Amino acid sequence: MAAKRLGKSTVKFTNPPIIVGTGTIVGPIEGKGPLASDFDVVLPDHAYGERTPERSETKILEQAAKIAIERAKIDKSMVDYYMAGDLLNQVISASYSARQLSIPYFGLYGACSTCAMSLALAGMVIDGGFADYVLVACSSHYQTAERQYRYPIELNIQRKTTSQYTVTGAGAALLASSGIGPKVTWATTGKVVDLGSKDVNDMGGAMAPAAADTLLTHFADTGRGPGDYDLILTGDLASFGSEMLKELVTDNGVELGDNYRDCGLMLFDTKSQRVGAGGSGCACSAVVTFGHVLKEMEKGTYRNVLLIATGALMSPLSCQQGESIPCIAHAVVIEA
Amino acid sequence: MAAKRLGKSTVKFTNPPIIVGTGTIVGPIEGKGPLASDFDVVLPDHAYGERTPERSETKILEQAAKIAIERAKIDKSMVDYYMAGDLLNQVISASYSARQLSIPYFGLYGACSTCAMSLALAGMVIDGGFADYVLVACSSHYQTAERQYRYPIELNIQRKTTSQYTVTGAGAALLASSGIGPKVTWATTGKVVDLGSKDVNDMGGAMAPAAADTLLTHFADTGRGPGDYDLILTGDLASFGSEMLKELVTDNGVELGDNYRDCGLMLFDTKSQRVGAGGSGCACSAVVTFGHVLKEMEKGTYRNVLLIATGALMSPLSCQQGESIPCIAHAVVIEA
Repeated sequence: MAAKRLGKSTVKFTNPPIIVGTGTIVGPIEGKGPLASDFDVVLPDHAYGERTPERSETKILEQAAKIAIERAKIDKSMVDYYMAGDLLNQVISASYSARQLSIPYFGLYGACSTCAMSLALAGMVIDGGFADYVLVACSSHYQTAERQYRYPIELNIQRKTTSQYTVTGAGAALLASSGIGPKVTWATTGKVVDLGSKDVNDMGGAMAPAAADTLLTHFADTGRGPGDYDLILTGDLASFGSEMLKELVTDNGVELGDNYRDCGLMLFDTKSQRVGAGGSGCACSAVVTFGHVLKEMEKGTYRNVLLIATGALMSPLSCQQGESIPCIAHAVVIEA
Repeated sequence: MAAKRLGKSTVKFTNPPIIVGTGTIVGPIEGKGPLASDFDVVLPDHAYGERTPERSETKILEQAAKIAIERAKIDKSMVDYYMAGDLLNQVISASYSARQLSIPYFGLYGACSTCAMSLALAGMVIDGGFADYVLVACSSHYQTAERQYRYPIELNIQRKTTSQYTVTGAGAALLASSGIGPKVTWATTGKVVDLGSKDVNDMGGAMAPAAADTLLTHFADTGRGPGDYDLILTGDLASFGSEMLKELVTDNGVELGDNYRDCGLMLFDTKSQRVGAGGSGCACSAVVTFGHVLKEMEKGTYRNVLLIATGALMSPLSCQQGESIPCIAHAVVIEA
């Protein structure tokens, strides 16, 4: 057993799960960004033919999951578990999509860290011999997130410089015990880190310390460093948070160079698109990783990617009650 | 690998995780019920010295977790993962307790099925060789649930006959790869089942079909039947839901006899205590199982228990939007 575990928080998969299929759907704004051509579906609008944005989010999550299964050329009945999450109260997008998919289901809540969290758990379930196929998926939606966390969109509230734009999208990946594709080889599970930030308009700043903690833990546990990866990817720290992460790790003797990028900055042209400091939301790291990064790995651009997806775990109520923002980051290594 | 998996949805643990410590805390009403003497702490009131019920819930979840670790006589730093969930938006009780515990954390959302869901996942992580100790925990709180799902308590809304009372409490169990104690031997993971019920005042009725589905799947996957268990325990179907479950499985040729009980009916004296059709909430199955049932197993009353924890996965918003209630049930076998 010892070979599977490194340090306190990292596991190395003996038979690493293989990503045999992916599905990615993005909204209209993401569809005008620099990665648009990498996604399976670009929505014409946020509603996508549904009468509520919540139904729209459920629909894209379900569709992304189905695309991932189709790509793997297997029947849905072969999928052992569906692990999914989103940002909404009671993760309803995940649960309602699970109803449609009818696959044994584990609902997860990791906020925007859900993508890496689900890859880590799915990896353990497959490598442990409990499943041949695990489908992981997560979603977010600009309009559902605004309704729940912020203000009615119609108010057109002015954003702060540090505010981020919640990605409308859904990303799914089918992990398998055998097959051809990139592999999830290591996973470092995060602790909750909370340095006392209460600014709900600066999620990147709140989450950066959690990202730094998980990144440093990953390096300590594995003996690796930034140079061991072609790409180190954070989920949605955006412009302020990713700068803060660089400073935080520099203070601990780790230099993040040109191989460090943030999904929230890759998905948009932050200069011309009105997305504040960059993208955020569960879908942010999911669509960039499953849509863009895996395609680049196939082309040979990257061979060894460290994804650190970050999540802010507060609720509107906890913030109203004066609590600070507890954050988390989970890391997984994806190798070509 | 094949030996670990039975049928489509059940796994059998090769090295079954052992429950080496538990912690249970209940509120004042539960503390007047028939199982009161089985719990570690009975709160004098719902507030427990905190200025909001949400803080009170976080506090009891954290304390139950700490009691479980203490009972196992290990240091907190030895715990590899903390898996927790609750009913609140963004599972804040779980996340804020994870902040205090500072253990690598997976947030789960399974509503009232969280107890069994976390045991299943923890079992896979331990049996897979990825952890020596996994702490699982969940909580619910009458006042936080009423605020979020229903009406201000001060309104004193009249309840329907089928309404259930959300248990104030927290239950935690420390699972280990070795040690002495009852073992989690099998797990059957549920699918979302939704027969179209929209009555938020009858959770038991909405969840009974999911419980039936998982129970029948468990028997089909394992070749077992009701006679193979000393105790078959549902989480919180309460009086109406548990009668419905019996009918649903009878229609499928399975007879549940005197060895079938429901945690929501065991925790209270439903005749004298004003708890409607019985208890509900994540804590319901957790405190009854970890507090009462495991103690009875130690005494020799039960040797072989099948726990089926049920969850209703709707949100207030999804109900307002006219959606029906998606439900799930996860089953685990606990053997002395």
